[in-house]
Amino acid sequence: MRTQPVILAIDAFLEHVHSTYPGVRVFHEDRADIPHGAEVWQTASPTRPPIDLVVTLGGDGTILHASSLFSSGAVPPVLSFSLGTLGFLLPFHIDDFARALASVFSGKATILNRMRLACTFYNAHGGKKAQGNDWQVMNEVALHRGSSAHLNTIDIFVDGQHLTEAVSDGLILSTPTGSTAYSLSAGGPIVHPSLSALVLTPICPRSLSFRPLVFPSGSTVRLRVSERSRASAGVSMDGRTGVGISMDGDGNGVLGPGESVVVQASPFPVPCVNRSSIVDEDNVSEPMLDGLASGEGWKGDLGSGDGFTEGARPGKEDDWVRDINNLLQYNATFRSKALLRHSRT
Amino acid sequence: MRTQPVILAIDAFLEHVHSTYPGVRVFHEDRADIPHGAEVWQTASPTRPPIDLVVTLGGDGTILHASSLFSSGAVPPVLSFSLGTLGFLLPFHIDDFARALASVFSGKATILNRMRLACTFYNAHGGKKAQGNDWQVMNEVALHRGSSAHLNTIDIFVDGQHLTEAVSDGLILSTPTGSTAYSLSAGGPIVHPSLSALVLTPICPRSLSFRPLVFPSGSTVRLRVSERSRASAGVSMDGRTGVGISMDGDGNGVLGPGESVVVQASPFPVPCVNRSSIVDEDNVSEPMLDGLASGEGWKGDLGSGDGFTEGARPGKEDDWVRDINNLLQYNATFRSKALLRHSRT
Amino acid sequence: MRTQPVILAIDAFLEHVHSTYPGVRVFHEDRADIPHGAEVWQTASPTRPPIDLVVTLGGDGTILHASSLFSSGAVPPVLSFSLGTLGFLLPFHIDDFARALASVFSGKATILNRMRLACTFYNAHGGKKAQGNDWQVMNEVALHRGSSAHLNTIDIFVDGQHLTEAVSDGLILSTPTGSTAYSLSAGGPIVHPSLSALVLTPICPRSLSFRPLVFPSGSTVRLRVSERSRASAGVSMDGRTGVGISMDGDGNGVLGPGESVVVQASPFPVPCVNRSSIVDEDNVSEPMLDGLASGEGWKGDLGSGDGFTEGARPGKEDDWVRDINNLLQYNATFRSKALLRHSRT
Amino acid sequence: MRTQPVILAIDAFLEHVHSTYPGVRVFHEDRADIPHGAEVWQTASPTRPPIDLVVTLGGDGTILHASSLFSSGAVPPVLSFSLGTLGFLLPFHIDDFARALASVFSGKATILNRMRLACTFYNAHGGKKAQGNDWQVMNEVALHRGSSAHLNTIDIFVDGQHLTEAVSDGLILSTPTGSTAYSLSAGGPIVHPSLSALVLTPICPRSLSFRPLVFPSGSTVRLRVSERSRASAGVSMDGRTGVGISMDGDGNGVLGPGESVVVQASPFPVPCVNRSSIVDEDNVSEPMLDGLASGEGWKGDLGSGDGFTEGARPGKEDDWVRDINNLLQYNATFRSKALLRHSRT
Ligand SMILES: NC(=O)C1=CN([C@@H]2O[C@H](COP(=O)(O)OP(=O)(O)OC[C@H]3O[C@@H](n4cnc5c(N)ncnc54)[C@H](O)[C@@H]3O)[C@@H](O)[C@H]2O)C=CC1
Ligand SMILES: NC(=O)C1=CN([C@@H]2O[C@H](COP(=O)(O)OP(=O)(O)OC[C@H]3O[C@@H](n4cnc5c(N)ncnc54)[C@H](O)[C@@H]3O)[C@@H](O)[C@H]2O)C=CC1
Ligand SMILES: NC(=O)C1=CN([C@@H]2O[C@H](COP(=O)(O)OP(=O)(O)OC[C@H]3O[C@@H](n4cnc5c(N)ncnc54)[C@H](O)[C@@H]3O)[C@@H](O)[C@H]2O)C=CC1
Ligand SMILES: NC(=O)C1=CN([C@@H]2O[C@H](COP(=O)(O)OP(=O)(O)OC[C@H]3O[C@@H](n4cnc5c(N)ncnc54)[C@H](O)[C@@H]3O)[C@@H](O)[C@H]2O)C=CC1
Repeated sequence: MRTQPVILAIDAFLEHVHSTYPGVRVFHEDRADIPHGAEVWQTASPTRPPIDLVVTLGGDGTILHASSLFSSGAVPPVLSFSLGTLGFLLPFHIDDFARALASVFSGKATILNRMRLACTFYNAHGGKKAQGNDWQVMNEVALHRGSSAHLNTIDIFVDGQHLTEAVSDGLILSTPTGSTAYSLSAGGPIVHPSLSALVLTPICPRSLSFRPLVFPSGSTVRLRVSERSRASAGVSMDGRTGVGISMDGDGNGVLGPGESVVVQASPFPVPCVNRSSIVDEDNVSEPMLDGLASGEGWKGDLGSGDGFTEGARPGKEDDWVRDINNLLQYNATFRSKALLRHSRT
Repeated sequence: MRTQPVILAIDAFLEHVHSTYPGVRVFHEDRADIPHGAEVWQTASPTRPPIDLVVTLGGDGTILHASSLFSSGAVPPVLSFSLGTLGFLLPFHIDDFARALASVFSGKATILNRMRLACTFYNAHGGKKAQGNDWQVMNEVALHRGSSAHLNTIDIFVDGQHLTEAVSDGLILSTPTGSTAYSLSAGGPIVHPSLSALVLTPICPRSLSFRPLVFPSGSTVRLRVSERSRASAGVSMDGRTGVGISMDGDGNGVLGPGESVVVQASPFPVPCVNRSSIVDEDNVSEPMLDGLASGEGWKGDLGSGDGFTEGARPGKEDDWVRDINNLLQYNATFRSKALLRHSRT
Repeated sequence: MRTQPVILAIDAFLEHVHSTYPGVRVFHEDRADIPHGAEVWQTASPTRPPIDLVVTLGGDGTILHASSLFSSGAVPPVLSFSLGTLGFLLPFHIDDFARALASVFSGKATILNRMRLACTFYNAHGGKKAQGNDWQVMNEVALHRGSSAHLNTIDIFVDGQHLTEAVSDGLILSTPTGSTAYSLSAGGPIVHPSLSALVLTPICPRSLSFRPLVFPSGSTVRLRVSERSRASAGVSMDGRTGVGISMDGDGNGVLGPGESVVVQASPFPVPCVNRSSIVDEDNVSEPMLDGLASGEGWKGDLGSGDGFTEGARPGKEDDWVRDINNLLQYNATFRSKALLRHSRT
Repeated sequence: MRTQPVILAIDAFLEHVHSTYPGVRVFHEDRADIPHGAEVWQTASPTRPPIDLVVTLGGDGTILHASSLFSSGAVPPVLSFSLGTLGFLLPFHIDDFARALASVFSGKATILNRMRLACTFYNAHGGKKAQGNDWQVMNEVALHRGSSAHLNTIDIFVDGQHLTEAVSDGLILSTPTGSTAYSLSAGGPIVHPSLSALVLTPICPRSLSFRPLVFPSGSTVRLRVSERSRASAGVSMDGRTGVGISMDGDGNGVLGPGESVVVQASPFPVPCVNRSSIVDEDNVSEPMLDGLASGEGWKGDLGSGDGFTEGARPGKEDDWVRDINNLLQYNATFRSKALLRHSRT
């Protein structure tokens, strides 16, 4: 259920699009409350129309959700707006939608290709566990003992070679994007999203020397629940667990002893529009619809006349560095204002 | 050199004391700029007059310094004011001095006895390295390789038993008070100051499994620089290093191979006036000078008519718990206001 | 199902007891395969006979289980033997049972009183959630999101004062004994078991500044699932989760929004026989049955003619310090034997 | 001073080289005890002869030292032998020198190009602090307060953008190779050496949320001692500190307020011979001297007839993954053999 402010924001957004960019069609994920001015987009339909630009409104979770809708192929560029509940992956505030859209439609926007991980699940006999395509995750795939009382035992293989047997609550295999999500809470490093790498972070390991590891993106990592593991491992992909994943017939999203997940860099990153690519509306002479909104959908490559330029660091600044500073509050020391106020009580 | 605001604050403070508590004598540590209204107190003199109450104005370091002036015996109660540069050990803002003094002189103040550690230094032959008394530290004693390029090797003994050989940048032996200082930066736990305990925290240890340890305050810990250590260990006590410590003839504050420091709970804690013991001035009928400011100096015990009550948790609240919440900003998550502002840029 | 070696070990043990200490009765927890020579002990029966000494054979979990059998009162002294699967709480190897028993029966054994935590569960309206007595845990009580996809939001109160709102996978409240169990894996400090303290360790917290905290054992800590927590919190006590706990009618061991657990030091520690109290059999002139095996059960106090002396550090050494060194392999650096072997391949 | 076993090992090595590979000239760094059969190599001479292959005997430090001898250009392939004191960068044991040399000379060896960092030092006015070329480090450049009592304040810029102001003992900028050295002790992640990346790890930071960061190797990182830093920052490069560095006239290797170091990926990595490229002597038909030992020195590129192939993962296995497993003893849990032995005492 959407709150009234959210409904109003969506309406304002749609009206602006239709009045400013008349030829553009807007689709909306299929659900009960499709707003006026948007057509239904059947996410599961093989004949769903191609998409040139994805717009998300909400928290970090909305981008993760958008990513999951394109889990078997290229993802169109994603323009993300926060609605107050702010997050780390959200470059724009909803109040700025006009300027942001102008940048995108005028071909001034730059994108950061956020790497994804492709996950394939295997049963104990080496056969694929799930029908169809691999799963693509934008943050991470995590194995966790869940509500089992006992620790997992998971064998880790890197490029076929045994790295270690991990006895722990679980393991996280994260992208650089996901390095500021669950992996960070579990003690992992913060990895710049323009680096191509895999981050392996243990969750509450028994072995005190098991530190987070960073592998080149060409690596193939297999996590196999040991035959002698006392607990199965629940699978979580970008925070979705349980039946939602339905990897196989039983559909419970759990790996039993001998079962494994194999993880590799995905060929399909998520192209995210950079905040720093936003331009002053005054500077945008007229909307350029040539590249974008061609109606042919995103092909997954840049410089093809789509009107985007790749660049984690467009022009003078790197959004991410500034975000890290702000969001993680590195500068916060004990000499905070809070204290000043407080000590007067 | 004191800044003008500091000089004014000191003057206002002294004037208030003399006008409100006429019989009270105020002493000042011997230095060039003794303020008007204060008598000189020769810190090193054996005949220095006894002190009933210590008042500090400045940062955390001023309390550590006050502690160091009473390193061979009981410390009088300490009432600490911040002058803007705030800190963790400073319950009161200078603007509140009238109320704070009223509480103390009316016998309404409660104190938290902050444990200290007694440190004795030994040479390689087991003889005492330093003349005179033990050193008492309020935060910690730290051994560190300093500017040596090489790691230290230090043998740790607990109650005479070998715990481990540590190869690291150094080791911190901290009080609960010091647990929020250097030890915290090095990865140690936060320990409530009303607990009696010793915290041993390694600084950048080679062994990944060397975690911080907490011992009962009855423990005796010996840190001995190994005979085969490639580096000597500089000694730092509450942040003072080098010649300032002059433990022996050479006075360089360094432990060579075979030399050691033995650390135990000190019999002389630092009694700190609690913030929560401050009362409304209206409720203080008249200054009670009986207990305090007797001119006989602090005897180191409570309930002897000195006008203090021990209590980490006086009345309804525990300053420390509130400070921890405020200062360490536990509640700071990614959804900060900073971000809200920032994303609008 | 017991393996053949375990069955043989139990038989040998029982035969030794009966032949060496003829008057002693041996009870066994009620289960299908009671060994010959042992009487059934109905753990849930109010008229179960009093016990003077508990003997456990197995892993750390067997001591935790023994503790849980005395969750509403005093625990008799516990003598623990490992059967190969070794653990941190197991001072004796099964092959040494004759010497160990001789020490205990001759009154030469010393014990370490391992603190427990008493846990009381409350519903959202402040009423007690569970009938009957409090739960006593020897390692820890942990709240965890379990298989929920979402983070918990838990409010922490110390002595009634709000410490912080924790957004995390969960929280651990541990004893010093439990500090080397789950809490250690989650990043907590190692606390000597003879210290009386509560350790609060967050599990994968979102806030990077939420460090482990150590409180005095007199503290009362309340963990309350926030009304706006997106996930309930599964309760785990000494590693037992779910229906095993049956805290209330639903018996699922889960705290919903508004529900809480209040934790305090328990008046009933677990008295564990120290390894270092083992003596050479030759030195034991004759079994002294006076104190122990009186048939009246353990009263929970020492020095009452029960034949035990309290002491974490009996005589010259502290088992725990030695264990920490061995078990955590502090000395393990990169220059290990493993490497020596390995590099020759 | 070399010990007798070391002298014997060197002699045996040299004799083997001369008898098996007659045309090869062997040079030795200039020092008092040049062994028989080696010519002097003046490290500082501009006319020093070109080198095709570097052989090191000793600890990890010998490779770091070899790297420092080629700090202004390409480094020849490095073949490293341990002499008992083993290390992480040492693939071969001295006893295996015949097989290792055979592999290298037969062109069967593969190499891992270990990235280096180029460091340039600037004074407070933006001018270069040091004459001549940049410094190249293989592990890390570290800034540290050294023996100063006070914390450093260092401003960090990434690609010109301010990341944060760090108040800490110091900062480490490490290569993936160095990620298992000082950075690891300070809490950094373990990074596979075939990844190109910069690792920034704070040393005992005051801010609890300052976590290790990983940047793409294209990043330029500037560390500038803040004007208001209470302490200068000693510079340490691959563990060498102080006068050894002589960055400028004063030659003390210290950065004062306003001074900075700028760090980037170096164009000159260190090509290290992989352990897994060692072959059975039987399989080596005859020494192939064509590529190697051409007498023209290493040009810094592969596949130029030098007889080397690049490859972190030659054939079936990745030395590094196996080393991580062995050296860091990931598998070490509490159920160690050590305990088994120990508990019988
Ligand atoms: N203990 C922890 O820290 C846990 C974290 N998560 C994370 O939550 C993610 C799912 O997110 P939601 O659907 O929004 O679930 P959610 O509503 O439970 O929120 C999780 C939190 O993570 C933040 N977040 C998500 N992706 C992030 C990123 N790449 N960088 C920084 N912060 C990020 C969100 O803003 C939110 O604060 C998972 O992919 C996982 O990374 C999931 C479980 C436990
Ligand atoms: N890397 C680090 O975190 C280092 C910390 N220190 C700490 O500095 C202390 C000396 O303090 P100053 O003379 O003020 O030197 P300083 O002026 O260098 O300040 C050190 C910082 O530590 C804070 N601090 C001091 N005691 C504290 C406590 N008990 N709890 C929380 N914060 C505390 C101060 O407010 C200040 O922010 C030493 O006892 C040591 O604990 C010293 C060296 C390195
Ligand atoms: N990620 C983790 O580290 C987790 C740890 N646990 C721990 O397992 C305990 C239950 O133990 P078991 O019934 O044996 O379950 P278990 O068979 O799953 O074993 C847990 C491991 O913890 C060890 N352990 C238990 N108590 C210990 C202590 N006080 N100090 C050092 N090691 C200890 C055991 O020897 C065993 O290796 C719980 O109380 C909890 O502390 C439970 C879940 C996750
Ligand atoms: N607290 C710490 O961990 C410190 C570490 N160091 C490290 O020592 C290095 C200099 O080494 P040495 O000249 O041998 O001095 P050293 O003889 O003082 O040895 C330092 C230790 O680090 C090991 N080491 C060196 N490089 C390594 C690598 N890349 N991966 C894993 N282990 C490694 C060495 O084998 C040795 O055990 C520096 O580059 C720095 O990384 C230096 C100072 C403090």
